[in-house]
Amino acid sequence: MYRIGFDIGGTNVAAGIVDESLAVTERITRRFEKQAYPGALAETVAEMTRMLCQQAGLSQPPAAIGVAVPGSIDPAAERVLNAYNLGLHDVPLRAEVGAHFPQIPVFLANDADAAALAELYGGAFRDAKCAVLFTLGTGVGGGVIVGGKLWRGGMGHGVELGHMALDIGGARCTCGMRGCIETRCAATALIHAAREALAEGERGLLFKKTDGDAAKVDAKLVVDCARAGDAGASAIFARFVDALGSAVVSVIHLLDPEVIAIGGGVSLAGEFLFAPLRENVREKCFFSEFARIVPARFGNDAGIVGAAMLERDAKIN
Amino acid sequence: MYRIGFDIGGTNVAAGIVDESLAVTERITRRFEKQAYPGALAETVAEMTRMLCQQAGLSQPPAAIGVAVPGSIDPAAERVLNAYNLGLHDVPLRAEVGAHFPQIPVFLANDADAAALAELYGGAFRDAKCAVLFTLGTGVGGGVIVGGKLWRGGMGHGVELGHMALDIGGARCTCGMRGCIETRCAATALIHAAREALAEGERGLLFKKTDGDAAKVDAKLVVDCARAGDAGASAIFARFVDALGSAVVSVIHLLDPEVIAIGGGVSLAGEFLFAPLRENVREKCFFSEFARIVPARFGNDAGIVGAAMLERDAKIN
Repeated sequence: MYRIGFDIGGTNVAAGIVDESLAVTERITRRFEKQAYPGALAETVAEMTRMLCQQAGLSQPPAAIGVAVPGSIDPAAERVLNAYNLGLHDVPLRAEVGAHFPQIPVFLANDADAAALAELYGGAFRDAKCAVLFTLGTGVGGGVIVGGKLWRGGMGHGVELGHMALDIGGARCTCGMRGCIETRCAATALIHAAREALAEGERGLLFKKTDGDAAKVDAKLVVDCARAGDAGASAIFARFVDALGSAVVSVIHLLDPEVIAIGGGVSLAGEFLFAPLRENVREKCFFSEFARIVPARFGNDAGIVGAAMLERDAKIN
Repeated sequence: MYRIGFDIGGTNVAAGIVDESLAVTERITRRFEKQAYPGALAETVAEMTRMLCQQAGLSQPPAAIGVAVPGSIDPAAERVLNAYNLGLHDVPLRAEVGAHFPQIPVFLANDADAAALAELYGGAFRDAKCAVLFTLGTGVGGGVIVGGKLWRGGMGHGVELGHMALDIGGARCTCGMRGCIETRCAATALIHAAREALAEGERGLLFKKTDGDAAKVDAKLVVDCARAGDAGASAIFARFVDALGSAVVSVIHLLDPEVIAIGGGVSLAGEFLFAPLRENVREKCFFSEFARIVPARFGNDAGIVGAAMLERDAKIN
């Protein structure tokens, strides 16, 4: 028995065969630009499904197909309401994919929700009843587990963790609000802060490593320079940890989860991030005991694995 | 059949007999300063219970006694961990009260949690599966309903809604963090802003009504002056609504509740508060449909009624 999971990104569609132990045993990636014509994404999903089965030499069909999308899903999980990076607006993707495979159950979810599900079934959230995933990337995504099940919101709208307010006196967010978690805790926030520092005359390791070229700054570089003890980068990283600590405390003060997992490239900094983050949360949190704060287990595979597991989550109620 | 609810405040203990329809049919209040000696609060609760029964001419004992405390409760709801205003620290209040009434079940809760429960059983949260109460007073309290039941936190620590981060670049909170919801959304925030305006030379209606005496400013006065169209007070009130709107949006983006109720004195401003608040949330919220935002039904009785209903909540699981 196996399932197929799809992780739709802004430029690539990744798909994989996921076995019962949540291992991705076969995978393919295909370049995919914005929805070229109605049904194009569903066609890609169908073609890639057939290709995967063929490549793996599997004759029986998958037990389920799950699709994780970077955008909002309707409460019935039938339609993509808005996925700006894909150019999808109110698209009945579940039915479109289902039309290609009338015998196979198809499931749809937001990608951060799918990632949280992967952690629930085989990662940092195993055996947790309440858990929260932060994914720190270009933006900040999030997935929430309540009652041992994916939380889709009380009204079915899902979770927009990155657009909780954190710093309302602060910078304008892409969404129009000021000071969303995303403006301070995305990997992008590290990059912006480093570029600003360069523009303001920072001449330490960041400058040396980039020849002062702001375009060469990425989040890993900022972390590496901070790790090397550079003062400018360390200050930027400390401010990032402080903001992330406040975001984590906000979630703890509302949900008091057992586990908080941090995913995305920045989380690869490991204990260099997690040790000061836990300390920051300890200083601010009202509770003497609080959530374990750990790296997400699934990296790039989180979307694929979580999408594949949507069928199992649907069976629990 | 009746229950007795207690609402322990910083200076007064209020108690009431609550009938099946959630009406408070009899009530008494007694002045109570900080815990004078171990067991003093439990004794007061016991005396007031006897007094209430006598006053109401009831011979049979109550079906339950519930006690709502302005502080944190342990996960088993046996002990008051910290209630600074009462001088209670790690007090086994449930057992202490229970010792006076071995035959009556006794329940303990945080006061904002109790208030949320009152709304669930007879107020704004009737029939809701997911709902959030904000109480705007000296601080900001909150109670959360998930799955049609009081949410006590994933690890049992309860909810500290007022200490979610909102404006981390902003003012220092009493808790030591910067920019907690409480610093911007408590009734106290309106008062502080008005006093600051007076100190900075504000000479409008706020000045006229107080003769420039900052000590005379209270939250109702700020609301009244804003309602009268005074420019200074209107700006303060608009900034308050904007911050409260962001706090509400944060909760919606994480929990997507069906209802959000606002309680506390400021909520008596009615539509003068709720109309612009809903508009502010509509501008910021990612979801085209979101929680109804309504006044809490129970005012001063919220603690008493909610405490009395703790027994009923304990039966659901």
